[in-house]
Amino acid sequence: SKMTFEKKKTSEEEEGSGDGVKVNDQGNKGEQLIVSYWGVKPMKITKEDGTEWKWSCFRPWETYKADLTIDLKKHHVPSTLPDKIAYWMVKSLRWPTDLFFQRRYGCRAIMLETVAAVPGMVGGMLMHFKSLRRFEQSGGWIKALLEEAENERMHLMTFMEVAKPKWYERALVISVQGVFFNAYLIGYIISPKFAHRMVGYLEEEAIHSYTEFLKELDNGNIENVPAPAIAVDYWRLEADATLRDVVMVVRADEAHHRDVNHYASDIHYQGHELKEAPAPIGYH
Amino acid sequence: SKMTFEKKKTSEEEEGSGDGVKVNDQGNKGEQLIVSYWGVKPMKITKEDGTEWKWSCFRPWETYKADLTIDLKKHHVPSTLPDKIAYWMVKSLRWPTDLFFQRRYGCRAIMLETVAAVPGMVGGMLMHFKSLRRFEQSGGWIKALLEEAENERMHLMTFMEVAKPKWYERALVISVQGVFFNAYLIGYIISPKFAHRMVGYLEEEAIHSYTEFLKELDNGNIENVPAPAIAVDYWRLEADATLRDVVMVVRADEAHHRDVNHYASDIHYQGHELKEAPAPIGYH
Repeated sequence: SKMTFEKKKTSEEEEGSGDGVKVNDQGNKGEQLIVSYWGVKPMKITKEDGTEWKWSCFRPWETYKADLTIDLKKHHVPSTLPDKIAYWMVKSLRWPTDLFFQRRYGCRAIMLETVAAVPGMVGGMLMHFKSLRRFEQSGGWIKALLEEAENERMHLMTFMEVAKPKWYERALVISVQGVFFNAYLIGYIISPKFAHRMVGYLEEEAIHSYTEFLKELDNGNIENVPAPAIAVDYWRLEADATLRDVVMVVRADEAHHRDVNHYASDIHYQGHELKEAPAPIGYH
Repeated sequence: SKMTFEKKKTSEEEEGSGDGVKVNDQGNKGEQLIVSYWGVKPMKITKEDGTEWKWSCFRPWETYKADLTIDLKKHHVPSTLPDKIAYWMVKSLRWPTDLFFQRRYGCRAIMLETVAAVPGMVGGMLMHFKSLRRFEQSGGWIKALLEEAENERMHLMTFMEVAKPKWYERALVISVQGVFFNAYLIGYIISPKFAHRMVGYLEEEAIHSYTEFLKELDNGNIENVPAPAIAVDYWRLEADATLRDVVMVVRADEAHHRDVNHYASDIHYQGHELKEAPAPIGYH
């Protein structure tokens, strides 16, 4: 196929082997074709039942059934000074959050997931660069932390389907992300031990919030709508799953992140680096 | 199992369910045990032949056979001004690199892979945060770019086994990474179109360098040692594979990254965002 947008072409590119790739341009131009000499067609993937896999940001083999048996009550008793600071920093953040959201747990989930997806990416990125600089293995922790970030982002992609954030909530997200990203980046460079402990406590709070979310669903204050299609595929839910089922698996995910982060902090507490202990990849 | 390092414990943690996790402490203390209430045992994974999978940073289902039929000669003819700037920037970087490394392609590969693994992580991270801020899907491009970064890092993990960088090369890597990371971060924020085009040209140069590497192997200037175990597993090579086989698959990887980046730039050139075109995940 031809290159449609570049005027001067050498013969070599004239007979370019690139293919046109369909683009789902949300604009009114409908389906447009990006014709590029470099066009790379995505792999065609089908579900077990042969129907086409329609999600591009996760693949069938990345879906899973959440382990709902995980102990939701586990708590790390802060014993050292840094632990106590981490604990009280998280507790103090709870107060303005409760004030802002009151019982609107749908919006709360959306807003907090935009923050929850930051630490894993920052930690994974910093470990990736450390592995490059020091020519050393990572023990799989880059992947484990990036997996956490991707999982939290999928929470957001799911809740986005059931709750539409208002313009001022969107503005808040942008400012909170800017502050939190930089603070966590510096915090992680200075002390991964402290950073992972804090995320462990943030996850303990998230479990609490999702339990409240369930209560609001059960007493009818929040409508128990059908689960979004993306959630049904991602967590392998039943076709007739509802929002309640989604909140249950999301809460279980947070408990797994709690374990991984408290564990990562403990590894540092015992004088080791993460790379020395095999990473809990695929722990959900 | 008990918590061995925290003195004051509540009863709840006394009967903690955490397990001890073996740590391969490179120090002389031999195998130590991290005992943590939060200990998460990594999944036990075995190869198809039942033997235990020994790598923690990649899994059997993430290994692949590189497509060696990819056209190594494809080149993007720079037609716009930004294209020409990207092209000449990369060409001008070639000159000092050749001067520094001469024909030492083992060391060259190691050093350049520490740089090549930066763009994918930066691009993936920025797209991850944009997806969070804007509550929008990513079209799979976060994963495609993070995959590229991880693949380039695996190149480094492989070449590290056959060439040991000297202390001044390690120092150079640290400074180059600091400069390149910040420059690429700013460049990507300003113009992903330009950034992807530049990476496309860097990959075209990498293909050229690996071809030279092969020549040095073939004329005996570089010893064609057996392929490192990590490479044999990662690219599913034959058990008796040699360094030459590794360079062949690494060069094929670079050609795939060339396509993905030139394609990503083309998408922007046609006025679209990456998320509008399904990402080429697993393209290798």
